[in-house]
Amino acid sequence: MRNPPALEQLVESLRCLPGVGPKSALRMAYHLLQRDRKGASGLALALDNALQVVSHCGSCNTFSEQPLCPLCASTDRDSRLLCVVEMPTDLMMLEQTQAFRGKYFVLMGKLSPLDGVGPREIHLDKLIKRAQNNIVEEVILATNYTVEGEATAHFISELLRSRGLKVSRIARGLPMGGEIEHVDSSTLAQAMMERRLVG
Amino acid sequence: MRNPPALEQLVESLRCLPGVGPKSALRMAYHLLQRDRKGASGLALALDNALQVVSHCGSCNTFSEQPLCPLCASTDRDSRLLCVVEMPTDLMMLEQTQAFRGKYFVLMGKLSPLDGVGPREIHLDKLIKRAQNNIVEEVILATNYTVEGEATAHFISELLRSRGLKVSRIARGLPMGGEIEHVDSSTLAQAMMERRLVG
Repeated sequence: MRNPPALEQLVESLRCLPGVGPKSALRMAYHLLQRDRKGASGLALALDNALQVVSHCGSCNTFSEQPLCPLCASTDRDSRLLCVVEMPTDLMMLEQTQAFRGKYFVLMGKLSPLDGVGPREIHLDKLIKRAQNNIVEEVILATNYTVEGEATAHFISELLRSRGLKVSRIARGLPMGGEIEHVDSSTLAQAMMERRLVG
Repeated sequence: MRNPPALEQLVESLRCLPGVGPKSALRMAYHLLQRDRKGASGLALALDNALQVVSHCGSCNTFSEQPLCPLCASTDRDSRLLCVVEMPTDLMMLEQTQAFRGKYFVLMGKLSPLDGVGPREIHLDKLIKRAQNNIVEEVILATNYTVEGEATAHFISELLRSRGLKVSRIARGLPMGGEIEHVDSSTLAQAMMERRLVG
């Protein structure tokens, strides 16, 4: 006696979600089919829709439904400052501090060779082109102060400084091992203000 | 600066999964859109397909793509014995022990008034009809030995005994508070063999 094939397929498909193993996937599938069919069909729709309309901003690389995200399209921002972050969540946290009026570049990840994430996966070619537009005067590295975030910042600073760009790093006001997403706004604002030149 | 609407919608939709809060949902959405678009579209397809083809067996109430599941359609099984379990996982665990050759009824849950799960949600009307077909001679209650499982077994036994049916309960060979899904096969087989009459 086994589960019907379509159910097994659903369990298998749910495992593409990060942190979901075989037991959770089975529990999720049962829950959806038994208690929340409306939620399940909403999820299928939202997945399809997001896959269709969500792409990346041509300038800052964050998720966007338009070729240029609202922040990149804005004329209010200081185009001479370019802040590099790992994820869109980090960008949103920085925006909440209101301590930065420049523009952003979102890596969509961090260097992590063991997970197969190299310079190409975090779009460093795109970043180099973006930083060398003769308008950007300073690149501020606001990756996390974790091991991978630090390595990523180091790698990028070498890359950009060898091309004659001024590179800074947000101050180590964040606790060691901490992640931007979880820090309070005032600490983050402090770190942004106390950024230091690299090299 | 906020996430694009289609992304927000996806995050919201992912929260219908049990155990997924706002932060996990955001992490899942980023992961799907950034690293596993193929998985995401596979998941959407699997959800749609499962919703379309997976329904319930008309006889035992388990998930099935046919009106009658393979086990209910089988002529090899002893139709005089009806074993009541909470979930399809429990049914499969019992089948693995090979200690039972009768038929099943799957409640698809347990009585849990605080979660809004009453007699109707666990299909007791369907069970009563199923048990009163003049073929079933004994109903074996194989719900978990948890508080809710015990309450469910008690409720069902009262219901069926008042209709003149013989009702038994699998032996308390399972550890207290334990769940059928997690117990080893030999303990479970023992519990099936040592089932005792109620009342």
